[in-house]
Amino acid sequence: MVRIKDIAERLGISVSTVSKGLNGASDISEELRQVVLDTAVEMGYTTKSSRRMGNRRLCLFVENMGYEKMDEFGYDIVLGFKQSAFRHRWDVDIIAITPSFQMSEKYDTFLLRNGYCGAFLLGLALHDEWMKQLETTTMPTVLFDNFIPNNPNVCYIGTDSYEGIALAVNHLYRLGHRKIAFLNGSLYSMVSDQRQEAFESAMQELGLALRDDMMARGYYVSDSAKYHVPGFLEAGATAIVCGNDLIAQGVIEECIRLKYRVPWDVSVIGFDDITVAATSSPSLTTIRQERNSLGKCAYVSLNSLIHHIPISKTLLRPSLIERESAARLWTGYGSRY
Amino acid sequence: MVRIKDIAERLGISVSTVSKGLNGASDISEELRQVVLDTAVEMGYTTKSSRRMGNRRLCLFVENMGYEKMDEFGYDIVLGFKQSAFRHRWDVDIIAITPSFQMSEKYDTFLLRNGYCGAFLLGLALHDEWMKQLETTTMPTVLFDNFIPNNPNVCYIGTDSYEGIALAVNHLYRLGHRKIAFLNGSLYSMVSDQRQEAFESAMQELGLALRDDMMARGYYVSDSAKYHVPGFLEAGATAIVCGNDLIAQGVIEECIRLKYRVPWDVSVIGFDDITVAATSSPSLTTIRQERNSLGKCAYVSLNSLIHHIPISKTLLRPSLIERESAARLWTGYGSRY
Repeated sequence: MVRIKDIAERLGISVSTVSKGLNGASDISEELRQVVLDTAVEMGYTTKSSRRMGNRRLCLFVENMGYEKMDEFGYDIVLGFKQSAFRHRWDVDIIAITPSFQMSEKYDTFLLRNGYCGAFLLGLALHDEWMKQLETTTMPTVLFDNFIPNNPNVCYIGTDSYEGIALAVNHLYRLGHRKIAFLNGSLYSMVSDQRQEAFESAMQELGLALRDDMMARGYYVSDSAKYHVPGFLEAGATAIVCGNDLIAQGVIEECIRLKYRVPWDVSVIGFDDITVAATSSPSLTTIRQERNSLGKCAYVSLNSLIHHIPISKTLLRPSLIERESAARLWTGYGSRY
Repeated sequence: MVRIKDIAERLGISVSTVSKGLNGASDISEELRQVVLDTAVEMGYTTKSSRRMGNRRLCLFVENMGYEKMDEFGYDIVLGFKQSAFRHRWDVDIIAITPSFQMSEKYDTFLLRNGYCGAFLLGLALHDEWMKQLETTTMPTVLFDNFIPNNPNVCYIGTDSYEGIALAVNHLYRLGHRKIAFLNGSLYSMVSDQRQEAFESAMQELGLALRDDMMARGYYVSDSAKYHVPGFLEAGATAIVCGNDLIAQGVIEECIRLKYRVPWDVSVIGFDDITVAATSSPSLTTIRQERNSLGKCAYVSLNSLIHHIPISKTLLRPSLIERESAARLWTGYGSRY
């Protein structure tokens, strides 16, 4: 069990300062208080007061997504949500769910039976059983990357896919690329649909041709690259935009296997900016999602729904992170290096 | 100047309870505290502590929109924003602006010179000078009903126009209407463009014909009705969806002038649910925007931007408010009344 002393040691501050931060004393700065609270949550500390509060409990359901290790996509989202909830004295339970769990338990019943005031759902697929039930749920619910029409109890939170994909395509265009391929994520995902639409409209706005042999759907896994990359390269692609960073890593491996060098022969751009994007070789140019902020905004949206403010959608800005995997198109004149 | 005693009288509670609410004492309920704070703001009270805080100042700019009287569109938005800001010890100044003011003062310079940490802008038009400057502003800024691409310092807040217009069109369809006209708002407005797109796609999804002689742009004023309603009726429209409630009121007056009875001969649906919608005759079926919630969400979004959380977009759910101005299409069989 994490003690106040452990938090003090990690932050290099005194035990009494940590205490003040946890207890909301007014003689430490707001900034320091927030660092203390955030660190306490990250280390798994729970205050007596949050244990005392009784029925202030939220549930975070996760499916199809890693979140326990720091380098997994869900880690920072879960952390941001817990940090914000903790600051407002909510307890958060995290439950990993499966399609069969959703078949055996009704969503509303599960929340009510277990005394939850609301929930945040990460990673559900379009065809999941609970997605149907969310159309009529009466429980305050925030969905990451999924949208339910017409139900004022459900809010969608995510990163603006349209702006993100446009950033990637426009960046490649500025680097001289015209034959740009797109290896998208899963078929059963709302954001994959958005990113597909975004890719097509970004290409059209630049006057670039959309070719069926330069677009495909992967499954959010690196393995999909080997089925599609050979065709893209054969069709003359000089750059490949990917639906996420894992796909991008698979694309880079497949390019190397086929003796194409990244970025000299092919540029590759990912989406997400997961931890390994910065350290892989070549490091990955990607579209960043602010995952800790997504978690924090998910809490704010859920809290709004609980207070009967009918938030429907909260989107964060993506940003372009320029690294090594995308470079200016080599035009054949002068030295290649 | 409003005193604690005035707030106590208005709420019918003791002066000491109001004091406790204003000072954050822990022995009154959170619900009562919020009512006290909200009422204090509505009555124009400022606590000593908010006056003491120094540089915690936000600015609310308003253009093209009434906000000082309770029945004006902007009133509840401004109130919701001020209520949330006050609760977090921010001072809010409200400044009515004009196009010429925007030409004479640079946006960022004005905020910096006057010590504002961020701003909420209501009612700007697409061609306004400050809209250009917002593309590159470094000041945390929330825009009502306007979107600036790619700038992480600017957030768009509004009501989901697509869902709202679809609610109106689908409601009329369920009532038997097939010849549905649309009198939209101003040409120079992003939400008018959204509502136009929404109307066209809602009609197409229902398999209804889009006709040029049944769609027009007004200017968010009731006066536009007389130019367009005669043509709609001549083309056989049995229902008219309007870009806002003021336009809808003008449409109803024009119908009556032309000897058409609302709703027996023509159904009319507005957008916004302004105060008079409930009391006009016939009372107005409309798409409600939660304006107090919009103001509260604008504060939450601005506070997020100030804390470097790059919110891009926050949308609220619209809801259909059924009143007298829309009714089942009379099919010619049986009694008309």
